[in-house]
Amino acid sequence: MEENVPFWSILTDLQKEKMIEHSYFQNYKEGTIMNYSGDNCTGVQIIKSGRAKVFISSPDGRAITLYRLLDRDVCMLSAGCMLKNLNFGVNLEAETDCEAVVIDGNVYQEISEENSAVKDFTLAIVSSKFSEVMWLLEHLVFSNVGKRLASSLLEQKNLLESNSLSITHEKLATDLGTAREVVTRLLKQFQLDGLVELSRGKIKIVDEKSLIQLSL
Amino acid sequence: MEENVPFWSILTDLQKEKMIEHSYFQNYKEGTIMNYSGDNCTGVQIIKSGRAKVFISSPDGRAITLYRLLDRDVCMLSAGCMLKNLNFGVNLEAETDCEAVVIDGNVYQEISEENSAVKDFTLAIVSSKFSEVMWLLEHLVFSNVGKRLASSLLEQKNLLESNSLSITHEKLATDLGTAREVVTRLLKQFQLDGLVELSRGKIKIVDEKSLIQLSL
Repeated sequence: MEENVPFWSILTDLQKEKMIEHSYFQNYKEGTIMNYSGDNCTGVQIIKSGRAKVFISSPDGRAITLYRLLDRDVCMLSAGCMLKNLNFGVNLEAETDCEAVVIDGNVYQEISEENSAVKDFTLAIVSSKFSEVMWLLEHLVFSNVGKRLASSLLEQKNLLESNSLSITHEKLATDLGTAREVVTRLLKQFQLDGLVELSRGKIKIVDEKSLIQLSL
Repeated sequence: MEENVPFWSILTDLQKEKMIEHSYFQNYKEGTIMNYSGDNCTGVQIIKSGRAKVFISSPDGRAITLYRLLDRDVCMLSAGCMLKNLNFGVNLEAETDCEAVVIDGNVYQEISEENSAVKDFTLAIVSSKFSEVMWLLEHLVFSNVGKRLASSLLEQKNLLESNSLSITHEKLATDLGTAREVVTRLLKQFQLDGLVELSRGKIKIVDEKSLIQLSL
């Protein structure tokens, strides 16, 4: 657990034992749902390896990505039921094959009651995710889609550590909460402007500097 | 302080004394800024009377209201500097004349360290505001229910040839294909925005011009 659980060092030996006893490792195949918004009592999920996305979806099937979780990132919202006044749910999906540690929510809460440093940890995680959502909200309200698409391409570049992105227009559209047609049209414009090169299933970033400029 | 501070009863006598010593009452005239997004170390602000709105604004002057604060509501984000990983700021503006209690952020944090029930309170407030923002985000991204509700009210007005509409929230919800709770919440928002006045079984349109604007 030590290398996976960010708050391990603040636990007593007894608390470590208890947490190990009430946790399990879980593997998720790429594309599978790790948690539905309806069930926010799955437990505290910590990503051991892989990448997951947290998103919300509408009754008519549209979706928007809130943020992503990488190594050692913690999904507290999948244990949202233990958070007083938190009354929304999110979906968690494995974007690559993922391994996660799932800690029983009740046990996590019991240990919080004994160890107030765990409470600090919970508050820091919730504050961090709140900040991510505020960032998204600001971008949605105040910035245009072109700007957000540029940010999104740069984010993908950093995630994949490559200028050549294997990503569909559909997927970019979902991330941005817009229509695929909008993304396709903007990408064609980006290509005309010499920012990217498009080929089947691939987007190659050719002028990163201008893309950064556009994203600001 | 007792009637203004929601967590008063969980403090020890010594903590109460300390908090009183490091708090002050502050009056704000309608329309004045109680806190700028740049300064998130003002302190924990608790509304004693009046109504305030929490909003973000863009560099070019656009703004969006995140939520409102009423009696005994707590603005923790004006003490955001004490929250680890919280890295955004909000503006707080008095919508009516307001009286607030301002608690020094450092003292609040010191007392949190001694009394973990205060930590629970902080987490509950942050979770509650996070939930409000999620509600807003979902509505911004997925729904035009507000727009459609405004249209529906205007339609009823024309139908009834009166500004005073005898119509249930249930019926409006059915018309819009949404839940009654959504309509009730939106109508309350409309009332706060000065568009309508709600009373038992009645909705009175008081600002038709703005309602038309909203419906477009």
